[in-house]
Amino acid sequence: MTHSRFKLPELERFIQDAMLALGFPKNDSRTIAQLMAQADLQGSDGHGIFRLAPYAKRIKAGAINLRPQIKVLKEKPAMALIDGDNGMGHLVMKFATELAIQKAKTTGLAWVGTQYSNHAGPASLYAKMALEHDMLGLYFAVGNANHLPPWGGLDMLLSTNPIAAAIPALDETPIVLDMATTVAAYGKVKAKAQNGEMMPHGWMVDQKGQPLLDPKQSDQGFLLPIGGYKGYGLSMIVGILAGTLNGAAMGRNVIDFNKDASSVTNTGQAIVIIDPDAFGDIQEFKKQTDRLIQDIKASRKMPGVERIWLPGEQSHLKKLDHLKNGVALSPALIEQLALLAQELSIAPLLAAQEV
Amino acid sequence: MTHSRFKLPELERFIQDAMLALGFPKNDSRTIAQLMAQADLQGSDGHGIFRLAPYAKRIKAGAINLRPQIKVLKEKPAMALIDGDNGMGHLVMKFATELAIQKAKTTGLAWVGTQYSNHAGPASLYAKMALEHDMLGLYFAVGNANHLPPWGGLDMLLSTNPIAAAIPALDETPIVLDMATTVAAYGKVKAKAQNGEMMPHGWMVDQKGQPLLDPKQSDQGFLLPIGGYKGYGLSMIVGILAGTLNGAAMGRNVIDFNKDASSVTNTGQAIVIIDPDAFGDIQEFKKQTDRLIQDIKASRKMPGVERIWLPGEQSHLKKLDHLKNGVALSPALIEQLALLAQELSIAPLLAAQEV
Repeated sequence: MTHSRFKLPELERFIQDAMLALGFPKNDSRTIAQLMAQADLQGSDGHGIFRLAPYAKRIKAGAINLRPQIKVLKEKPAMALIDGDNGMGHLVMKFATELAIQKAKTTGLAWVGTQYSNHAGPASLYAKMALEHDMLGLYFAVGNANHLPPWGGLDMLLSTNPIAAAIPALDETPIVLDMATTVAAYGKVKAKAQNGEMMPHGWMVDQKGQPLLDPKQSDQGFLLPIGGYKGYGLSMIVGILAGTLNGAAMGRNVIDFNKDASSVTNTGQAIVIIDPDAFGDIQEFKKQTDRLIQDIKASRKMPGVERIWLPGEQSHLKKLDHLKNGVALSPALIEQLALLAQELSIAPLLAAQEV
Repeated sequence: MTHSRFKLPELERFIQDAMLALGFPKNDSRTIAQLMAQADLQGSDGHGIFRLAPYAKRIKAGAINLRPQIKVLKEKPAMALIDGDNGMGHLVMKFATELAIQKAKTTGLAWVGTQYSNHAGPASLYAKMALEHDMLGLYFAVGNANHLPPWGGLDMLLSTNPIAAAIPALDETPIVLDMATTVAAYGKVKAKAQNGEMMPHGWMVDQKGQPLLDPKQSDQGFLLPIGGYKGYGLSMIVGILAGTLNGAAMGRNVIDFNKDASSVTNTGQAIVIIDPDAFGDIQEFKKQTDRLIQDIKASRKMPGVERIWLPGEQSHLKKLDHLKNGVALSPALIEQLALLAQELSIAPLLAAQEV
């Protein structure tokens, strides 16, 4: 079998139908579908429709609240803590981000945390929402499975705890960083397993510290943090900011949502929105961002390097390609989604073309 | 020659005398001396008295304002932008951090940026100020010399742009992360050069991407970012938050203060103070931090690992040792400081004991 490509409206239609069939209200189904399809559109392969079947499993197990009362638990002018009421993470984080943007418009800066949220897709999805408002977005989250031990240790007490940042530019493509604090995100390991590929050196090691290359053996080892002990520390800080501070799961009380489809995860996230106008002038800020981007692009290159990329630039090009030609999904994923369509009695996902 | 140890009051006395001789007012001299000695106390070798001679060179060249009018340029309840008026970074960052703490007491969270500041010592110095108030501190800064090209590039457009975080605990030692976004901070390269030692693999590469091991050749190559392209992206984001956002130097307008002792650096920094009480309950937060620390310490260990360290724990033990036995300085540094004492006509630094 070959990969096939699927157009954005069809991806959204399919996910929305699935969410409706799983019992979500229509508006929420559409919101979830749009955000999940957006993940595929920007090339966050491990975080879009790839997650639909695992989400469906959790939802069918009753582990997600279909009618959450998402509400503000604590609030001051520039901060809030949101109780996600165990709703889908996409809904909780959209609520949190919109509140942070609204607050930042008057306070210059806002920090909104979540508790009792769930997996919300790629980190950059929410940081990028700031861009439409000419603001900066930062996002931190506690990953939904611990695959990282403390540096030198074996007990998996930490997760890939990602960081995202979105920086508006004037004529250039905005800078968008979206990174796990581990060398590889666990979604990438899962994608390798589904595609039957081996992992490169440096992604994972086994219990003796030896390289682990077979993604199907991933539960025999653990991910490596970026920069060794530095990434271990960074993952911990991100986890404290997104989890501990919000009264959300962190450390040993993180639920491994790959193994446990029925427990409430109490996922924590944090979104920070900054209005550059509060610090100076937005036009000047965007001009300076452009200048930085142009300087970086114009840098002399190492031997063999064809092009210097800015964070988010490859994702932006993927988005343009995906909008035009559709999103390519693997045969294994297509098969999984066909089964899901049968199970939920919804119309199967219709390919635009084979690639 | 051997290393010698110096007691904290003597380090402070010496630095204060030097600052007075260089023309700073008495109060400012004392503040700078206390913060610089604090760096040595916590084991930030590259950021304490090690910097005194280079600072003196800049000050004598007229590149630092001896009588800065440090003031608030922009302000909203939870944010401020500080004009450091080209004062010593220690004075500017102390002002910024105290303002952020005061703001966070009413707003739950505050973000204060600086422009026209200068090198301010180790990143953790300011994040840690939050701990006395039972708050969390985050710190970002633009490094004072570009030693990092974009990923795949050769032009040094980025710096080691550090991140620090301080997290209060109950009975355990607070978690304090202090990391450059490069594998090694440039201060560590300079310390290796001064001590006549080679650098380990992975710190720097030359223009062809080959390992560079001799710290005396450091201007022939560049630092490597943590996690490859991830650290490149992280350094850029930290630089934008601490520099571009504040109207401070970032990218190609960063002054290399190792080569240029007379130009105004327009250094930018940012301090974020978070009051856990705004998100929940401080006692509960500290209890959860303790639990995380205890879980991590109790983790099973990789073969050959004796102890699992928390970020900031080694620094804390160094501080206890240094308070009791004094700070060890290298023969080369002691000689440099003896020359400086002659130049400035101040009493030489008096060793407590040889080690």
